[in-house]
Amino acid sequence: MKSSSKSPLLENDGQPLYVRVGEKLKAWIHEGQFLPGDKVPSVREMSTKLRVSVSTVLQSYDTLEAQGVIEARPQSGYYVKLRQDFNQNSEIKSNPRSAPRFIESDNAILDVIRSCGDSDLISLGSAVIHWSLLPSEALQKSLIKVARENIPECMKYEKGVGAWSLRQLLAQRSAGMGCDVATESVLVTNGCMEAINLALKAVTKPGDTVAVESPSYYGILRALESLNLKILELPTSSQQGLDIDTFEEKLKKFSVTAALVTPSFLNPLGSFMPDEKKERLVQLCAKYGVTLIEDDIYAELKFQGSRPLALKSFDKKDQVIYCSSFSKSLSPGYRVGWIIPPRKLSEKIEILKASLTVTTNSPAQLAIADFLQHHNYERSLRKLRQTLAQNMCLVQQKVKLYFPEGTKVTQPEGGCLLWVEFPNEVKGLELHRKALKEKISVIPGPVFSANSKYQNCVRLNCGNPWSEKIDKALLRVGQLAHGMM
Amino acid sequence: MKSSSKSPLLENDGQPLYVRVGEKLKAWIHEGQFLPGDKVPSVREMSTKLRVSVSTVLQSYDTLEAQGVIEARPQSGYYVKLRQDFNQNSEIKSNPRSAPRFIESDNAILDVIRSCGDSDLISLGSAVIHWSLLPSEALQKSLIKVARENIPECMKYEKGVGAWSLRQLLAQRSAGMGCDVATESVLVTNGCMEAINLALKAVTKPGDTVAVESPSYYGILRALESLNLKILELPTSSQQGLDIDTFEEKLKKFSVTAALVTPSFLNPLGSFMPDEKKERLVQLCAKYGVTLIEDDIYAELKFQGSRPLALKSFDKKDQVIYCSSFSKSLSPGYRVGWIIPPRKLSEKIEILKASLTVTTNSPAQLAIADFLQHHNYERSLRKLRQTLAQNMCLVQQKVKLYFPEGTKVTQPEGGCLLWVEFPNEVKGLELHRKALKEKISVIPGPVFSANSKYQNCVRLNCGNPWSEKIDKALLRVGQLAHGMM
Repeated sequence: MKSSSKSPLLENDGQPLYVRVGEKLKAWIHEGQFLPGDKVPSVREMSTKLRVSVSTVLQSYDTLEAQGVIEARPQSGYYVKLRQDFNQNSEIKSNPRSAPRFIESDNAILDVIRSCGDSDLISLGSAVIHWSLLPSEALQKSLIKVARENIPECMKYEKGVGAWSLRQLLAQRSAGMGCDVATESVLVTNGCMEAINLALKAVTKPGDTVAVESPSYYGILRALESLNLKILELPTSSQQGLDIDTFEEKLKKFSVTAALVTPSFLNPLGSFMPDEKKERLVQLCAKYGVTLIEDDIYAELKFQGSRPLALKSFDKKDQVIYCSSFSKSLSPGYRVGWIIPPRKLSEKIEILKASLTVTTNSPAQLAIADFLQHHNYERSLRKLRQTLAQNMCLVQQKVKLYFPEGTKVTQPEGGCLLWVEFPNEVKGLELHRKALKEKISVIPGPVFSANSKYQNCVRLNCGNPWSEKIDKALLRVGQLAHGMM
Repeated sequence: MKSSSKSPLLENDGQPLYVRVGEKLKAWIHEGQFLPGDKVPSVREMSTKLRVSVSTVLQSYDTLEAQGVIEARPQSGYYVKLRQDFNQNSEIKSNPRSAPRFIESDNAILDVIRSCGDSDLISLGSAVIHWSLLPSEALQKSLIKVARENIPECMKYEKGVGAWSLRQLLAQRSAGMGCDVATESVLVTNGCMEAINLALKAVTKPGDTVAVESPSYYGILRALESLNLKILELPTSSQQGLDIDTFEEKLKKFSVTAALVTPSFLNPLGSFMPDEKKERLVQLCAKYGVTLIEDDIYAELKFQGSRPLALKSFDKKDQVIYCSSFSKSLSPGYRVGWIIPPRKLSEKIEILKASLTVTTNSPAQLAIADFLQHHNYERSLRKLRQTLAQNMCLVQQKVKLYFPEGTKVTQPEGGCLLWVEFPNEVKGLELHRKALKEKISVIPGPVFSANSKYQNCVRLNCGNPWSEKIDKALLRVGQLAHGMM
């Protein structure tokens, strides 16, 4: 046998040596010694450190690369992959109630809304990307530039559909999500939520049913409630998104007007829908005459590989309403989003926008257009994705460390959100209230449901720069949860 | 008799000499030689010019002052009053259909909406105050300052209810409209239309009836339509606002959930409601349990005297929802408005805002707060009011000169809008379409009604700096109207 351990660092468990080298590195990654995106020791360093041959390390690294743990970057070395494929037992599946219903009002929602933008709180909950992780200085430079050089355009109403320069850039960027979009088709909005409200208003009337993934972002639930719409909550996997077979069964039973779907990094589950599923969903909606409203706000935050295709890229019948925003990738405070409706709905949405908020803030539109033209958005996105992947990894580790045994946590491939499922004894609402008293905010599970489901869940945000304060807050939340067991 | 004419400039019509001096000056004002706010010749100059005694001119000026034509400013001289009280035969009264109804969709609305913010057009229609009449440079300086000095606050979500500094200033300014408002009561919105949408959402459900003045701003009509509300259009005078007696009759017959009223310078009629009527309206709504939604967007633009009291200042039962914005007095493009709801509705509106647009653009909120603190808003308002009064006077003169005989035009005491009622042969929609072909926009009367009334009307905007181009465009519109006679 060649598997004698020359290295004191490697326990001889009967496995081949190169496997043991690999397990060692995996352990270090699990412990957080190397975070997603970090460079791992070079082959030579590893060989010296573990006292194994260079060829053993090479064999080991090849295997790890095949497993999706690390990746080789030419002329640079080996890096921990941003998306860790080796830990697959983190799927969480929802099973919401199954008939269309009106949404029940929610007592916790006000606290939850107020925790967003409250700088007195340690915000572990709100889906906010901290300004220090965004290209803030460059964007503000663009704002200063347009404010100085273009007073008339900043001061006056932009056209309701938005500034032409920005619409043009948004149309161009749509190629990245697999769509060929004309500038005229893009309408600028006050963030993604206005886009979604416009989409819903354009295709529904009060009492109609809208299908959504469950759990579902509380802002969307409240929007559906305020528009007097019924909701059909669909079973959803934290890995692959909504359960299309169940959706089809429901479509046979119930009349559904629209489906509001987040294919990439669903808030809060983080689900990522595979392309073949996207295609099937678009076809299914076309078959049943259901308008598909796509919420794509997190799509730019895919940790690894190219930007996901949009549902709209599979839309052969021009029936998908695409909604997105810069709030998670450039600036929450600028409030700039956009909507790309089917041609037949374009004028209706233009009129609805005029009667809802007239136009979108002019300086912000011009500043973002300037930023996209003169700064490196892609580079800032790459940096952001890496930081979010690292943060998420750290928060996951802390959850495993601090939270009660039996707690499950999602493992998304992008975005900034984690969904935590506690043992049944731990009540998310109670945890939220207790944490709030200590100036820590987590978002309780029940606000993501039309009827207070997900009692033992909370949503965590990974969009803050990692700090001891965050670490301690997670520890405290864990202690509070332990106290309920 | 003392009335012999010493002056070749004064025709001897048998009137006392001082009266003839006064008529001469009035004629010059009517001809536009002196515009509202302009200084008129001093007593000495006038005496020399007309070859009459100083004491005759003094007597004449005293009389004109008593008539409200001119006003004396201490140590400065005599000025044409901004509000011309001597021409009172310009009242226009509406008489809309009388039962609650759903709003019919409108084919012209898209062209109308698109004409706003379209710089290819000579915009005689859209209710836009040109940036050159606003304190644009100072406001942009504030924007540059906050963009430079306060990157984190600009980038992040403000609280949904708005930036505290701005809310504080808005609460303080409320004293000027006769209200005592706590900072906590003010919520910042994306302009006045979002405020109105939130107010309507908070108190109505689909199928409810909302009373409005008629004619009514098309944005509001479209908002009511999009919320599936019925409308009750009330007869309204261009001078005194809505007909409260008729409103009371309707309240006895129909169930009305809310009344949406613009007490100061109603769009499009320019009506100004006297205080005793405001008080009666508030009491009437309280008596019938009707929520009063106040649209106060034009109130800062009163040409003469102090800022009008708000309906809310008469609100003893905390039932008025106050809505306003900076779009007509500071910047249209910044999209910053606010809502002051009754205490009992405050949390509901906070949640509705979170589900509609989440928060309002942060840099704009901070820039306006900085502007209000460090620049002279009152001075810029005084300048703006004078310019608008002058523009309005010029447009009125041109309407009388260029438009067909029998055309009536309103004479508002503030705001920027004129309502023109042509003889029946002239169709506003046709005029709008014909003018649009020549790159001139006027807003056709029918878009201000739920069922295409006001066929022979158009709305004109006086918010552009006066120019030969505007003059020529008005002449051309007049020619087109003549062509329909």
